[in-house]
Amino acid sequence: MPKYSIGVDFGTLSGRALLVNVETGEELADATYEYPHGVMDETLPDGRKLPPDWALQHPADYLDVFGSTIPAVLKQSGVSAEDVIGIGIDFTACTILPVKADGTPLCLLEKYISDPHAYIKLWKHHAAQDKANKLNQIATDLNQDWLARYGGKISSEWMFPKIWQILDEAPYIYNEADFFMEAADWVIWQLTGVQTRNSCTAGYKAMWHKQNGYPDKSFFKALDPRLENVVYDKLNCPITPLGSKAGEITEKAANLTGLKVGTAVAVANVDAHVTVPAVTIDGPGKLLAIMGTSTCHILLSDEEHNVPGMCGVVEDGVCPGFFGYEAGQSCVGDHFAWFVENCVSKEYYDAANAEGLNIHQYLTQKAEQLKPGQSGLVALDWWNGNRSVLVDVDLTGMILGMTLQTKPEEMYRALIEATAYGTRKIIETFRANGVPVDEFYASGGISLKNPMAMQIYADIIQIPIKIGGTTQGPALGSAIFGAVAAGSINGGYDDVFKAGSVMGKLRDTIYTPIQENAEVYDLLYAEYSKLHDYFGRGENDVMKRLKEIKKQQSV
Amino acid sequence: MPKYSIGVDFGTLSGRALLVNVETGEELADATYEYPHGVMDETLPDGRKLPPDWALQHPADYLDVFGSTIPAVLKQSGVSAEDVIGIGIDFTACTILPVKADGTPLCLLEKYISDPHAYIKLWKHHAAQDKANKLNQIATDLNQDWLARYGGKISSEWMFPKIWQILDEAPYIYNEADFFMEAADWVIWQLTGVQTRNSCTAGYKAMWHKQNGYPDKSFFKALDPRLENVVYDKLNCPITPLGSKAGEITEKAANLTGLKVGTAVAVANVDAHVTVPAVTIDGPGKLLAIMGTSTCHILLSDEEHNVPGMCGVVEDGVCPGFFGYEAGQSCVGDHFAWFVENCVSKEYYDAANAEGLNIHQYLTQKAEQLKPGQSGLVALDWWNGNRSVLVDVDLTGMILGMTLQTKPEEMYRALIEATAYGTRKIIETFRANGVPVDEFYASGGISLKNPMAMQIYADIIQIPIKIGGTTQGPALGSAIFGAVAAGSINGGYDDVFKAGSVMGKLRDTIYTPIQENAEVYDLLYAEYSKLHDYFGRGENDVMKRLKEIKKQQSV
Repeated sequence: MPKYSIGVDFGTLSGRALLVNVETGEELADATYEYPHGVMDETLPDGRKLPPDWALQHPADYLDVFGSTIPAVLKQSGVSAEDVIGIGIDFTACTILPVKADGTPLCLLEKYISDPHAYIKLWKHHAAQDKANKLNQIATDLNQDWLARYGGKISSEWMFPKIWQILDEAPYIYNEADFFMEAADWVIWQLTGVQTRNSCTAGYKAMWHKQNGYPDKSFFKALDPRLENVVYDKLNCPITPLGSKAGEITEKAANLTGLKVGTAVAVANVDAHVTVPAVTIDGPGKLLAIMGTSTCHILLSDEEHNVPGMCGVVEDGVCPGFFGYEAGQSCVGDHFAWFVENCVSKEYYDAANAEGLNIHQYLTQKAEQLKPGQSGLVALDWWNGNRSVLVDVDLTGMILGMTLQTKPEEMYRALIEATAYGTRKIIETFRANGVPVDEFYASGGISLKNPMAMQIYADIIQIPIKIGGTTQGPALGSAIFGAVAAGSINGGYDDVFKAGSVMGKLRDTIYTPIQENAEVYDLLYAEYSKLHDYFGRGENDVMKRLKEIKKQQSV
Repeated sequence: MPKYSIGVDFGTLSGRALLVNVETGEELADATYEYPHGVMDETLPDGRKLPPDWALQHPADYLDVFGSTIPAVLKQSGVSAEDVIGIGIDFTACTILPVKADGTPLCLLEKYISDPHAYIKLWKHHAAQDKANKLNQIATDLNQDWLARYGGKISSEWMFPKIWQILDEAPYIYNEADFFMEAADWVIWQLTGVQTRNSCTAGYKAMWHKQNGYPDKSFFKALDPRLENVVYDKLNCPITPLGSKAGEITEKAANLTGLKVGTAVAVANVDAHVTVPAVTIDGPGKLLAIMGTSTCHILLSDEEHNVPGMCGVVEDGVCPGFFGYEAGQSCVGDHFAWFVENCVSKEYYDAANAEGLNIHQYLTQKAEQLKPGQSGLVALDWWNGNRSVLVDVDLTGMILGMTLQTKPEEMYRALIEATAYGTRKIIETFRANGVPVDEFYASGGISLKNPMAMQIYADIIQIPIKIGGTTQGPALGSAIFGAVAAGSINGGYDDVFKAGSVMGKLRDTIYTPIQENAEVYDLLYAEYSKLHDYFGRGENDVMKRLKEIKKQQSV
């Protein structure tokens, strides 16, 4: 009898379950559930107004994902719960909530139902920026060595700025909370009845290190005396490496999901990182780029190096036994979306309509007729700042080379090229700092939908590009980790790479660099690099000065 | 009985006559005639195909302008030809044609009717670029001192590259021609029966200098031995200063136009230069900007200086007795037109339609709500190269500071600001080289139609801006020169400034710099200047390298 695993991918607006044959990787059924509360960025459920930059979620929505999608995939596929050997999940991160000792979210307590700080702070809650700024300043002043692992700066999206904001603005919530949990770990707790904390979010979002643990008490005390014991008081739970079993489905969870009591549950994971085995990556030197509105890069290595401008390096942070590196480009698909929303002529929209194409298809059709360099344009891909390798949110976009003959498709292509130059910059920085990059795997919407972009990337980075074979990389990755949690004894696997080699998949298409294009792109990349350093490394800080003027003029 | 003067403005696509009261400046009537042959840039009248970059015109069209528009304004106004004391004209330049000794254009001779080189080469005929390049190289190698008067480089649009192209490609036409004429001077010849050559086109377009004459024979010989005597052989006619009378209406011209035999005719003039008295400019230090698709700047001075990057300095080149300086920005209105054609979202077009506005009006309505610096953007206005002060056609456009929130109106405003920074750069360069600029006058479409742009210019250049009081600056200027040709003895004037003070006019509106805007623009101009020098003065020649790559990739 074939065995199955279920992966559940918790996104920003919905959760999705995927049921996978463990022996073939076949995807038998999937189901999606939109969060009824969505992203609460204007009001609480009771209508209470939220300040700017807030983004909250409701924990009931996550449980409803389990309750809705797992029965649905069982039913759709006709697979018996008996034959489901494991379940894994991945989540957005850092998405956190305050809970009681038994796991009850504070926002579900009657007395806090109208208190914004009792709710889940979604990854894109940006109201803790001043806390992040202070934290970075103090960490720099105190020469905290962990800072280098995060490219010298941590994000306001991460765990401690968010906890600190709660302490500062709602100390009673801070005091009432027995734990602050990643939502990823919280949903696993709901399935298994036991609290675990995964090494991925702990490492990438909470400054945890396998050897050194969290930053010192003295550091937290320097932030705020009340935070001195935050780790002991609020995060007190061992960290479990990815690839481990968190526990088993409880009776309560069985009632919710239709799964059998005792089904193996993997420790929680993160959407980008979980995708690695889903594209068959099985070791160091194989860079995965998850290309969507932004791009996240994940790379394994045998060694720990401080690579400038990365988002983090975490032992066991992606696959057990390896150092996982994360890098990022903060604006990729968003870039192209901005362009078509703001910068494409009405004439083009009308022509696209007439041909029955969407505007991206229409522009691509024109842009793919251009040779490299034919537009005369070069752009810097910093419309949303630069994450890697400059780690500077105050950088802005630039495009250069326009003439009166410049056409929208030329600018569109230049923006795509700019993001590929940014990727090459990340690869070169890894290599220059002792972390090999030999292969390139792409996943996510752009990798599947835009062959022109992928060929441009191949020509620019000069590595053949393999494409993930599923539209549901994270859910498939989660199912792989579910099968590993079950173990070979239950018909699963004992090793993530082994599971990935069977259940993971690639498309047949490989984008191979075209030599004559690569030669021209070498020239253009040299121009990009020169401008990258001129504007990005302090020679001309015009972008920051303009932002400062803009700020003053916008009040 | 009041006296009248007629100005005829020959544009690129049509000619326009304006009848003006000499004592009041009142514009009584105007009439336009579109050239039936238009700009011939694809075929000759007989269908013969033209190579790329050619642009020809037909001389019959110009005569038809006289024959159509002058009778029309007489009729419209009810003014008797008896009371018309003078006529002046202005023309595009450099627009030249080969003629026989009696003035007959070669293209009207049966045997040359199918020969492109026999026709009029319009100012924007760009097929002599290689000749211009060679000429500039040789002039530089031979240390020709006149080169500095033209910012170190002459244009392919000017007279000698065009003549050289004819010699090279159609030596029989060169040999058959008794004269090469500016079309401006040729139409005056048709009115008066005598050949004259005006000091404006000779000085700005044919490297003539009041003291030194044309370049030496040795220079022309160095270009091509057959050109050694080009001045003597083909241009042999004294140069007449602007403000002079060229002659009087002949009987033939009287039949054509309805004017009286003996009516005074001014020497020919050029559209930009002729506008100076039409906006009441009466001496040095008063910069006129004629703002249209491109901007032309005219400035008088008592002294001759070599100012880097100007289009030329010519004694008597604008008004008799003064050195006239010309500078230029090669892309102003064209800039904004490019933007709305290529870069404005469909949503904006739809919204503009819904409000019954054109897209410029709609964008302006939004852009004028922005404060200086609020967009965070800065651009270099080089979509069509940079004429003054860098004299470099290979420079290209740049815009910087975009974020995902950047809106079309912000970019639109940034492009307007960029052209104003370019104007400030020209003003500062004049001042730094001993040519005072104390006042600023604007004429042309943008000055009349775009109050937001004019306020931005005032805030950036920090000089109050006066606006010409007519929509027909060149034609009014020509009428003023017509009245001067007639002289006070005939009810006209003996002095251009005197005539301009009566017949010229300004709008009541003056755009006065707003101090708080000027302070912010000082900061932004400093950023513009830094980028201007970085990209424009050799520190990073990325624009040229990209153009080179583009060229190679476009074959």
